[in-house]
Amino acid sequence: MDRIPILKFGRSLLVTIQVDMHDQLAMMLQDDLTSRLVKERARGVLIDISALEIVDSFMGRVLNNIAAMAKILDAVTVVVGMRPAVAITLVELGLDLPGVKTALNVERGMDLIRASIEEEHSAADVDTDSD
Amino acid sequence: MDRIPILKFGRSLLVTIQVDMHDQLAMMLQDDLTSRLVKERARGVLIDISALEIVDSFMGRVLNNIAAMAKILDAVTVVVGMRPAVAITLVELGLDLPGVKTALNVERGMDLIRASIEEEHSAADVDTDSD
Repeated sequence: MDRIPILKFGRSLLVTIQVDMHDQLAMMLQDDLTSRLVKERARGVLIDISALEIVDSFMGRVLNNIAAMAKILDAVTVVVGMRPAVAITLVELGLDLPGVKTALNVERGMDLIRASIEEEHSAADVDTDSD
Repeated sequence: MDRIPILKFGRSLLVTIQVDMHDQLAMMLQDDLTSRLVKERARGVLIDISALEIVDSFMGRVLNNIAAMAKILDAVTVVVGMRPAVAITLVELGLDLPGVKTALNVERGMDLIRASIEEEHSAADVDTDSD
């Protein structure tokens, strides 16, 4: 496989990670994702990791990097579909994915993205009102 | 990778095929998809093949089988994200995917599924009215 496909849903981009990441694939995913974020004017990134049995420190760093890049481009990153065993391992390893929000499944992740977009909008409204 | 993840979106299931299919993986996908269709009462199956550079006769048969199974379980199957080169090859090989609907991307595929559910609903309404 040459690259991980990125699907557009409304104002969000969805990535399903099904294979173990290596350096080059991770770099390409970051490149593709950031350029798609700009091109599609997306506000959210959903990363489904339900296929992953292990999230190691490299994978954790990739997820954190993606979230940090997306944040600079004004998008929220939500990781969904984490297996229970992966959650246990992450905590045991002390990898707490600081910049990443999580949700149980894609639908809840979408809701989370929608909520954070609306929150910003209403915050912007309040700003405008107070002027 | 042990199996291909299936994501639920509203009343549709989404599958992103990123790796070359082999017999066992295809069988498992069919098993998982049919049981999820029943469990989630889904009405549509979206299969994204944007990562595939080649769709050979085996893959074509897998897609046709999934569509046939989904149809029996009262769901529409839409294949999305086909690369131009894949479309050319399919026609040249005479593989016309008879039972499968196609759409350009996930959003259009979702619209197609929504439209066919609504069509059935309105057909059902007419039936009820005529009674």
